[in-house]
Amino acid sequence: MAELKNKKTDDIKNDKTEEAAEVHVNLMEDKFNELVNMLDTKHYSDFIHSVEQLNPVDAADFFEFLPMQRIPAVFKLLKKDTAADVFAELDSDLQKKIITAMTDREISSIMEDLFVDDAVDILSELPANIVHRIMKNTTSETRAEINRFLSYPEDSAGSVMTAEFIDLRANMTCAQAIEHIRRTGVDKETVYTAYVTDESRILKGTVSFKDLLFSSPEETVSEIMDDGLIFAYTLDDKETVAQTISKYDLLALPVVDKEKRLVGIVTVDDALDVIKEETTEDIEKMAAIVPTDKPYMKTGVFETWKKRIPWLLLLMISAVFTSTIITHYENAIGTYAILTAFFPMLMDTGGNAGSQSSVTIIRGLSLDEIQTKDFFRVLWKEFRVSILCGVCIFAACFIKTILVDFRLQTTTLLDNGTVQNNIVIALIISITAFFAVVFAKIIGTILPIGAKRIGLDPAVMASPFITTIVDTVTLIIYFTIASHVLHF
Amino acid sequence: MAELKNKKTDDIKNDKTEEAAEVHVNLMEDKFNELVNMLDTKHYSDFIHSVEQLNPVDAADFFEFLPMQRIPAVFKLLKKDTAADVFAELDSDLQKKIITAMTDREISSIMEDLFVDDAVDILSELPANIVHRIMKNTTSETRAEINRFLSYPEDSAGSVMTAEFIDLRANMTCAQAIEHIRRTGVDKETVYTAYVTDESRILKGTVSFKDLLFSSPEETVSEIMDDGLIFAYTLDDKETVAQTISKYDLLALPVVDKEKRLVGIVTVDDALDVIKEETTEDIEKMAAIVPTDKPYMKTGVFETWKKRIPWLLLLMISAVFTSTIITHYENAIGTYAILTAFFPMLMDTGGNAGSQSSVTIIRGLSLDEIQTKDFFRVLWKEFRVSILCGVCIFAACFIKTILVDFRLQTTTLLDNGTVQNNIVIALIISITAFFAVVFAKIIGTILPIGAKRIGLDPAVMASPFITTIVDTVTLIIYFTIASHVLHF
Repeated sequence: MAELKNKKTDDIKNDKTEEAAEVHVNLMEDKFNELVNMLDTKHYSDFIHSVEQLNPVDAADFFEFLPMQRIPAVFKLLKKDTAADVFAELDSDLQKKIITAMTDREISSIMEDLFVDDAVDILSELPANIVHRIMKNTTSETRAEINRFLSYPEDSAGSVMTAEFIDLRANMTCAQAIEHIRRTGVDKETVYTAYVTDESRILKGTVSFKDLLFSSPEETVSEIMDDGLIFAYTLDDKETVAQTISKYDLLALPVVDKEKRLVGIVTVDDALDVIKEETTEDIEKMAAIVPTDKPYMKTGVFETWKKRIPWLLLLMISAVFTSTIITHYENAIGTYAILTAFFPMLMDTGGNAGSQSSVTIIRGLSLDEIQTKDFFRVLWKEFRVSILCGVCIFAACFIKTILVDFRLQTTTLLDNGTVQNNIVIALIISITAFFAVVFAKIIGTILPIGAKRIGLDPAVMASPFITTIVDTVTLIIYFTIASHVLHF
Repeated sequence: MAELKNKKTDDIKNDKTEEAAEVHVNLMEDKFNELVNMLDTKHYSDFIHSVEQLNPVDAADFFEFLPMQRIPAVFKLLKKDTAADVFAELDSDLQKKIITAMTDREISSIMEDLFVDDAVDILSELPANIVHRIMKNTTSETRAEINRFLSYPEDSAGSVMTAEFIDLRANMTCAQAIEHIRRTGVDKETVYTAYVTDESRILKGTVSFKDLLFSSPEETVSEIMDDGLIFAYTLDDKETVAQTISKYDLLALPVVDKEKRLVGIVTVDDALDVIKEETTEDIEKMAAIVPTDKPYMKTGVFETWKKRIPWLLLLMISAVFTSTIITHYENAIGTYAILTAFFPMLMDTGGNAGSQSSVTIIRGLSLDEIQTKDFFRVLWKEFRVSILCGVCIFAACFIKTILVDFRLQTTTLLDNGTVQNNIVIALIISITAFFAVVFAKIIGTILPIGAKRIGLDPAVMASPFITTIVDTVTLIIYFTIASHVLHF
């Protein structure tokens, strides 16, 4: 069946999508220039109306497009509701700039209009003095809420949830429930999933708006609610929360405290952000970078350097193992200098084989496709794959060495008068390559799963870390075989 | 402010979440054993009722939990609606097993109940003879729809969209629109976003159910609809579609044909799957693996081998450049064997520095944080970062070589009677390390952006590919410097 679909899409990607994206970008730029024009010609009400028509994400892009010094004044033109929506989408640099230029009243009005999770996100990026000023200008109720949210640990479900959800009682009829949602839902983050709680706020069930809509008005909520409760605790890892939302295709997941009282919900758009962020973090760790949560173009040179240099230094210094081994065989190398010509090939092949396994397993662990309890099954599979790969590499390496490196010469006369048997050298190299592949794949399996088992992050156990180990072991294998065969 | 939140969550991750996950797994296993028990004691109506209570995702897990030979008979117990929901969540191996055991009538009933996008997904995984049997047993209407969907290229928006959406007319009142949704919405994939089309099915706007609910019943759809249309074309890349849904926090994105006629929608849960799949593909490519769309535990040993061996072989053979360079300097190595002791360190440092840049840039490109037009800005930034990293590496490498490798001996007497100046050797090594870092970061910037520019996949330009180039260049730098300084 695949044949029916595998019409290549590369061409399409390259013109169609790029083109569509270009069109969107161009349209937006035209739109932005038009808005600037309205400002320049003082058509403020047209401007306000046009910004309101924009999606808040695009409106935020417009502010990034404006020259820095114009931003605060232009922002103040926006109506309260639009202002809050757009503010939540802005970059923290711009938020800082705008807050600094605002009166206390203006700050207060924006803060009261934000969803608590957005307010918390904004606050956690701003410097302490600005946070202080903002907190001073919120109602004590909002302040208490914000403080509660700020107290959840980073990366916990509590830190990404929102408090604006709809709760229903089990004995309401569907008609009453819809009426309740219509009355209270306008400033909730989602009205499409409502949560049923009892008088102690304990979570009892979930009702989708769709079910309310398609049930008869007299049915009670308890009859139609789903009580096969899928929920998270406030202290659960936000990545697990996001994976649950993805697994069950939910629009939102309820979050409860230790007593199972409903305290918030995590919506699917936040789950999507969590998944993207956490994946970027994993990828950075796999590439020996200390993770950052800022986008690339917003990170300064020094900041980028600080994230990269620790692993570079550590891995450079750990190369002391390989130099020690090679130095140990310095005399043999004096005679058989040809052996060193294959260092890069052997070590890269080992490194590549190891990173294939470790990266596959790290990704499998993070998508929950692999569990730590599968350790022996995974190891057994990787072992068999490594034997297959090893045999191919052995054969290809032997042929390549004889054909390309030795140009079909079976012997070479060395400077010191001895005759070097090239077939033997090619065999030493190929056997080492075989063992390097097998060893690399096994260590690339053991390290990530082992790390997860003892509560470390598997992503750190990726390519660069494994490369150092594989390099060392490969050299030991190489010299052990060579010294036995060549008697040095 | 960050201080307020950075209470470490690692401990929590390790007990709380794992615990919660364990609890869920244990609960599910208990539940599954209970279900098996009902089957064994022939309490079929209890069994059917209990499966209906489960989330379809969990019910599908139950079938994976059953012994293979029991699956078809047990599956046939399910009611039509439940059967279709569960079937869509099953693994393709199980789907095949079940379809084979079904009568034509049963197949037909399931197919008519599935969403078209799920049916298409299922069909594209099954062997041709089974597909043929299924297609024979669908109504001609469904068959035409499925064929239309199958004709969209892989990875296009058309291939992931669903045809079950709600369309409204601009002149409907909100009350009429809600009534229309109530009447037609029950088997739509989402009722929370509706699309406004004209008589030629041209897309005119989007209305959220929330807006309908909170508007006055007499208002017309055209008054409240959002006409700042965000949509995709059927041939757009599905990854771009997913990124758009994520950017604007949408529940669904409309998909139109060339004439802007609405043909389908992509929902956020499908967007989430696309993002996860595409990221896994990128990660696999970065680790020199040919991507697969099957989960790790379902992929056989031979299949895994086939995905890994091409790059391993290619990269192994491309090492012919490094061996040629080293062979060229064989005589010099005979004298200065110590130089070879630093091959692994130099090449790994270069490789790590290069993969830091390339992986960061590939990720930035795929998240749209970096555009190809930013090329010079990115290159300038990476150049400055590379100088900073290079200087640190130079200093650390010099100190490490003198301290650890030469144990503070400034000279070494060689076998042939010449005196080797260790400070000079350490300088040669450290200068090479500096250039290796700078070169690696620059090539790690140019290759991914260049690849994207000419329409290739940037992810292929990651670590392993760059390592081969960086290895070669590093060796050339190394021997060029060494041969000038040491006169060989």
